[in-house]
Amino acid sequence: MAGKVKLDEIDHQILDMLIENTRTPFTDIAKKLLISAGTVHVRVKKMEEAGIIRGSSLTLDYVQLGYAFIAYVGIFLEKTHQTKFVMERLEQIPNVTIAHITTGKFNIFCKIRARDTNHAKNIIFMIDDIDGINRTETMISLEESFNDKKRLMHMIFNEL
Amino acid sequence: MAGKVKLDEIDHQILDMLIENTRTPFTDIAKKLLISAGTVHVRVKKMEEAGIIRGSSLTLDYVQLGYAFIAYVGIFLEKTHQTKFVMERLEQIPNVTIAHITTGKFNIFCKIRARDTNHAKNIIFMIDDIDGINRTETMISLEESFNDKKRLMHMIFNEL
Amino acid sequence: MAGKVKLDEIDHQILDMLIENTRTPFTDIAKKLLISAGTVHVRVKKMEEAGIIRGSSLTLDYVQLGYAFIAYVGIFLEKTHQTKFVMERLEQIPNVTIAHITTGKFNIFCKIRARDTNHAKNIIFMIDDIDGINRTETMISLEESFNDKKRLMHMIFNEL
Amino acid sequence: MAGKVKLDEIDHQILDMLIENTRTPFTDIAKKLLISAGTVHVRVKKMEEAGIIRGSSLTLDYVQLGYAFIAYVGIFLEKTHQTKFVMERLEQIPNVTIAHITTGKFNIFCKIRARDTNHAKNIIFMIDDIDGINRTETMISLEESFNDKKRLMHMIFNEL
Amino acid sequence: MAGKVKLDEIDHQILDMLIENTRTPFTDIAKKLLISAGTVHVRVKKMEEAGIIRGSSLTLDYVQLGYAFIAYVGIFLEKTHQTKFVMERLEQIPNVTIAHITTGKFNIFCKIRARDTNHAKNIIFMIDDIDGINRTETMISLEESFNDKKRLMHMIFNEL
Amino acid sequence: MAGKVKLDEIDHQILDMLIENTRTPFTDIAKKLLISAGTVHVRVKKMEEAGIIRGSSLTLDYVQLGYAFIAYVGIFLEKTHQTKFVMERLEQIPNVTIAHITTGKFNIFCKIRARDTNHAKNIIFMIDDIDGINRTETMISLEESFNDKKRLMHMIFNEL
Amino acid sequence: MAGKVKLDEIDHQILDMLIENTRTPFTDIAKKLLISAGTVHVRVKKMEEAGIIRGSSLTLDYVQLGYAFIAYVGIFLEKTHQTKFVMERLEQIPNVTIAHITTGKFNIFCKIRARDTNHAKNIIFMIDDIDGINRTETMISLEESFNDKKRLMHMIFNEL
Amino acid sequence: MAGKVKLDEIDHQILDMLIENTRTPFTDIAKKLLISAGTVHVRVKKMEEAGIIRGSSLTLDYVQLGYAFIAYVGIFLEKTHQTKFVMERLEQIPNVTIAHITTGKFNIFCKIRARDTNHAKNIIFMIDDIDGINRTETMISLEESFNDKKRLMHMIFNEL
Repeated sequence: MAGKVKLDEIDHQILDMLIENTRTPFTDIAKKLLISAGTVHVRVKKMEEAGIIRGSSLTLDYVQLGYAFIAYVGIFLEKTHQTKFVMERLEQIPNVTIAHITTGKFNIFCKIRARDTNHAKNIIFMIDDIDGINRTETMISLEESFNDKKRLMHMIFNEL
Repeated sequence: MAGKVKLDEIDHQILDMLIENTRTPFTDIAKKLLISAGTVHVRVKKMEEAGIIRGSSLTLDYVQLGYAFIAYVGIFLEKTHQTKFVMERLEQIPNVTIAHITTGKFNIFCKIRARDTNHAKNIIFMIDDIDGINRTETMISLEESFNDKKRLMHMIFNEL
Repeated sequence: MAGKVKLDEIDHQILDMLIENTRTPFTDIAKKLLISAGTVHVRVKKMEEAGIIRGSSLTLDYVQLGYAFIAYVGIFLEKTHQTKFVMERLEQIPNVTIAHITTGKFNIFCKIRARDTNHAKNIIFMIDDIDGINRTETMISLEESFNDKKRLMHMIFNEL
Repeated sequence: MAGKVKLDEIDHQILDMLIENTRTPFTDIAKKLLISAGTVHVRVKKMEEAGIIRGSSLTLDYVQLGYAFIAYVGIFLEKTHQTKFVMERLEQIPNVTIAHITTGKFNIFCKIRARDTNHAKNIIFMIDDIDGINRTETMISLEESFNDKKRLMHMIFNEL
Repeated sequence: MAGKVKLDEIDHQILDMLIENTRTPFTDIAKKLLISAGTVHVRVKKMEEAGIIRGSSLTLDYVQLGYAFIAYVGIFLEKTHQTKFVMERLEQIPNVTIAHITTGKFNIFCKIRARDTNHAKNIIFMIDDIDGINRTETMISLEESFNDKKRLMHMIFNEL
Repeated sequence: MAGKVKLDEIDHQILDMLIENTRTPFTDIAKKLLISAGTVHVRVKKMEEAGIIRGSSLTLDYVQLGYAFIAYVGIFLEKTHQTKFVMERLEQIPNVTIAHITTGKFNIFCKIRARDTNHAKNIIFMIDDIDGINRTETMISLEESFNDKKRLMHMIFNEL
Repeated sequence: MAGKVKLDEIDHQILDMLIENTRTPFTDIAKKLLISAGTVHVRVKKMEEAGIIRGSSLTLDYVQLGYAFIAYVGIFLEKTHQTKFVMERLEQIPNVTIAHITTGKFNIFCKIRARDTNHAKNIIFMIDDIDGINRTETMISLEESFNDKKRLMHMIFNEL
Repeated sequence: MAGKVKLDEIDHQILDMLIENTRTPFTDIAKKLLISAGTVHVRVKKMEEAGIIRGSSLTLDYVQLGYAFIAYVGIFLEKTHQTKFVMERLEQIPNVTIAHITTGKFNIFCKIRARDTNHAKNIIFMIDDIDGINRTETMISLEESFNDKKRLMHMIFNEL
């Protein structure tokens, strides 16, 4: 990380605005920060190239899309040298949206989204049958009360 | 959910493109789908108003931003009628990015991002001191192997 | 249990037929066992009065009725002398269909039926808020593969 | 479930009466609801054909029959693809009256009825020796405080 | 147990005295109960033959004998059909003084007495290496506060 | 323990015979060891006074006496300074035959004998309601495969 | 840590020798590294002042000193804001040699050294009775197989 | 341990001074205790030969050296007869500074020091891949509040 880009106050303000709405036109950002739209463009490009901005994504309403069921699955491996292989297999299941290597009792800990109980059962069975997985334990979400990284991002840019 | 909007093939294709890059110009989308940019605009607006598209957000590189430490915190409440109150207090801590009401041994299960071990300790102490929280258990992520909802979204739009 | 009724071979055969279909006409039973319908009637009455037959119930398809969600809830009490009081309160929640006093880590273990995840959450919250209940742990059924006491009943009457 | 039968107020009232006593003569139900016995017959038949009414069963006093011992057995499988096979084997043991596929630490969770401690030991040993079962954990019921689906059924028919 | 001996008041009083001191001369017992020593002898013999009295043992001070270390060892078997074989092997280790087949998380639960920590380690290793044993968990006694079946025996003879 | 009695070969042989049958006449022991009965008497007395022999007890058949139900109860205290008080209360319940202060998850670990499931429930409820006890966990014995300190005693006297 | 001292190759070699024997005369170190004893002195002083060398300690044989009993104690606090207070109280017990604030199920995790089981019990009771401590769980060491930081230190100085 | 060296008051005072600073010149110790430096030398040598003093080590500031990450790793073995072999393999990993054979749920319990989360992951993976290790569970230290054996040593020398 030796060569990483230093962000200045202007960069932070640009990020702070894009976080709220990634489609904010650069001209609007430019006007607010009293700089040129070209400068905004250059800086965003710089942050993309440095890998600080890795992309953008929509926040969709999964309940309306019929995917209201969320569960966390803890995975026990047979041997930890299988971690990388199992991760690749997990990534082939689109319903597994996040996966971590963890401390504590599980080797891998992941989050799944499904349509309902029965659909979740099928996904958990697919996970359970990956070679190298010994056993899984599932914890079901009764309600996702909030899922929001924007508060954290704003804090980061304010404290930097 | 009686009055929810029916999405057609065109809507799915629009979503499928925006998921990859929320800044894709509507004119590009229009060209690809052989429709007018105005139609794209109308349809996106309709999906926003129906709450299917709830917003957009940047995908940032937390490691470069100095926030490489991820942990999951399981919370035991004193009484479940405190759930709503505790959730509101958790939401005031920006480092808590996700929080669920769960089944199993925990009442609430949340995800935190911190700079390092010491920072995580302070955040966990803030959580532990919220009124109504009896005890917490923390599981530390040694590596976030993937965190990607796009694969799921594409699958949803293909199967709809 | 000193004064309990002794069941003979005829009683067993009557029970064995009623188990399969509680609405089987006594005349049908009588014909099969080569006894009079009056005898069937007398014997069923005797078993009802002795409390061996405590009633009859329909087997309904809960999925079709919109109650597909089953969970088991383990309850930790603050003090075991509250067991009786808590049981009475649990019995006032119709979604709690079975409740046991158990050994092991739970004081009380019960089964609930709900419409979906959200409904289950509300029922669990009602349970959690009963005075004397310290904490609960929930295990969700992904599929009720079978629920059938008839096999056991037939075995009992064959071995008696 | 597209083609499922819609139940009306009359159906609910019929079910509500049969739940209390499956042997209630259709003429009694007809008199109460001011309809003909033939109508009752037609409607019950319709609900049976639609699979809403799946049968009827006696409620027996297991203690009087010498089967006072109840336990819940949590099963850990070696691999989840064995679930279906293990379920079929469990169903061949009449003392296993209910079996679920579950989330949490167990793969399968079932209920057994036995005569006493020693009998329970033999049943648990039979379960433990099914191929594909890795380990079981047993929780013994000290008292079945209530086991009654009628309260739930009445509620369902009142809220429908 | 059909042919088991009925104990009367005299038998109970004899047992009650022998429990306190197994070496109490039969003449002393006879004098106290106003019966002949021969009667005492006949009755004790009868209870021995019926298997009610299975023997007698000294209560020694293990601490003075250098065996102050007590631990309970929970055993997980690979397969429960190995229970009988493992029990026979456990019985060959004199330091294992009690062994049970249990419900809950362990298959077998036993008590060991050793000289000290290091000696206990060796005994636990002997247990761990018996074929069919998968894993053990040990709970160490910091103090055996009481170990006394006499209170129970007196109660039994008073309530019979 | 500075002033504790040294046991010699003769003492060991006397103990070895009394362990098998505490009622063995001293004259029999004397004959076998080629010493006088008076010497046996003196030595036994010496060992009793030194506290090595603390008494003797009958081994009864609890199943025949109607006490076939054995359970181990793990106790969590509110505060460990209550240990002594709770132990005194436990000792007042004759069905609690052994009690230890332990390491691991429980503060106190005890063994109970009861007539059956229902009786055990009442005893566990008595324990749960002792002041200072927070919670208990019960593990039920399905079979006491052996309970025999004689093998250990013989080994001790052979190795001394 | 901005102003922290940079260690060079010479510093590493000095540390590498002192780690093996803190009493190594500086003249010996000087001779080996072909520098003056004064240079060694200056560099050690610099590292002491920078806090890199915080002191030195003897490695004693605890078994010979009568302190052979080692246990790890996990502590559950009532509230985490008591952590600092409890740590100060723990530090007043000399038998507690190490204490950590931890993730996972315990709030504090510490190591104790005692003479034997009974002594350990008294130390654990002292810990349990500190205000703010809710409960403890103890894990006993059957053998400290190795306890040696020198290998790590050598590796650190070789890789720096 | 029959032939072990008896330490007298002078020995204790010498140890008490060396504990504070292992480099304290023997002439300083001699002056304080009003004995000759030669006597100090002889006594230290005697204690080294008897193995009471097994060496000395520096107390370094691991945080400054870049090794701020501490974790405890609990190890489950496949079979306990592998304990010795696994211990030898663990000792080849310098980051494993302490290792114990333990009671309770783990077979081996060890402490590791690493640079950060990612480094810890690699060390844990190295441990997990040792032959004979079935599974590990890791508990991360958020802060090493104290690590100090001097208080214990002083107490030992004062009470001896």
